Amino acid sequence: MELYSYFRSSAAFRVRIALALKGLPYDLQPVHLARNEHLGDTYGRVSAARLVPQLVDGEASLSQSLAIIEYLEETHPEPPLLPGSAADRARVRSLALDVACEIHPLNNLRVLRYLVREMKVGEEAKNAWYRHWVEEGLAVVERRLAEDPRTGRYCHGDTPTLADCVLVPQIFNAQRFDCRTDAMPTVMRVFDACMALPAFERSQPSACPDFEP
Amino acid sequence: MELYSYFRSSAAFRVRIALALKGLPYDLQPVHLARNEHLGDTYGRVSAARLVPQLVDGEASLSQSLAIIEYLEETHPEPPLLPGSAADRARVRSLALDVACEIHPLNNLRVLRYLVREMKVGEEAKNAWYRHWVEEGLAVVERRLAEDPRTGRYCHGDTPTLADCVLVPQIFNAQRFDCRTDAMPTVMRVFDACMALPAFERSQPSACPDFEP
Repeated sequence: MELYSYFRSSAAFRVRIALALKGLPYDLQPVHLARNEHLGDTYGRVSAARLVPQLVDGEASLSQSLAIIEYLEETHPEPPLLPGSAADRARVRSLALDVACEIHPLNNLRVLRYLVREMKVGEEAKNAWYRHWVEEGLAVVERRLAEDPRTGRYCHGDTPTLADCVLVPQIFNAQRFDCRTDAMPTVMRVFDACMALPAFERSQPSACPDFEP
Repeated sequence: MELYSYFRSSAAFRVRIALALKGLPYDLQPVHLARNEHLGDTYGRVSAARLVPQLVDGEASLSQSLAIIEYLEETHPEPPLLPGSAADRARVRSLALDVACEIHPLNNLRVLRYLVREMKVGEEAKNAWYRHWVEEGLAVVERRLAEDPRTGRYCHGDTPTLADCVLVPQIFNAQRFDCRTDAMPTVMRVFDACMALPAFERSQPSACPDFEP
């Protein structure tokens, strides 16, 4: 498999974690988003949406990190990243979507660029926007994790799931933008538990071949 | 089952369509987002995230529209809203996520409110923001649908899938904000095919019990 990735893309980071948890080898193809490599025609032939990650597996070329992880779950079921019952699976998916739909889309590179270039938003207001959505969104995740007895060492039980694959990269972003994390002890406990696992540690931005300090 | 819904919420609209396609009866519980009913403590006991839709099915209380539809697919498999092969399922899920992660989160009520109240963005710039993300995001969906022989009468083949459940409500939003749709003939052809089906027609905002003109 080939994974088109950018070290700082948190959507690509999710897929790197899932591949590592399942022990699947892959070739990492770096796409430099900050240098707009994704907008060129070469990458346009790989990804119609010109986004990372894109996973190529034989004939299949797949976009959207959550769809890619569901594909990996279906084609390589072990170890599972979703629990057994439909209600528990819905819980894990909805925690992942709490990050993937409510936080991350508001803070990705093209949105921040639009705020600055089209709306002439200043640096301070841009950072306030970023922190607002991270802190409000992660407060929901904190409440859900803290209230539910199904939360274990990780977001759901004592083995990592799709929810952890999505939560951990969001915490990296939160820390990069100095978001407050003191009001989310459960989230941070889960984050620390995940980062103690080699699959998470080896997938982080600083461990990527295209990493730039 | 009880579905907490708001007539104008496109995320709730997705679930209404899925329930209708599967022929599942439900009690619709209206939550008036524009009057901030979702922010009160009463609804806070139903939904930790204070978002609609929320589906209550016996002991299970589920959030996030895509997680709810996957749950319905697992608990009521017929008629299927996902195709058979893992690669095709990934395609359908990724088309749904192209809308649910790349377009809709930028344009929902709380984001528009933040732009106006916190960032002091004017009406014209707010509408330009709205249209930008809709038109850019749907252009990706158009390209993917037009390029791929798996596109049929609907987004994937000749029966409606999860992708159609998510695409159709987004077109309602696009039309409400006067977004340009002339450059997306395949998207609009699929939209028209969907709206010819009773499951879509009966789930639209104007058919909801809480509809307000």
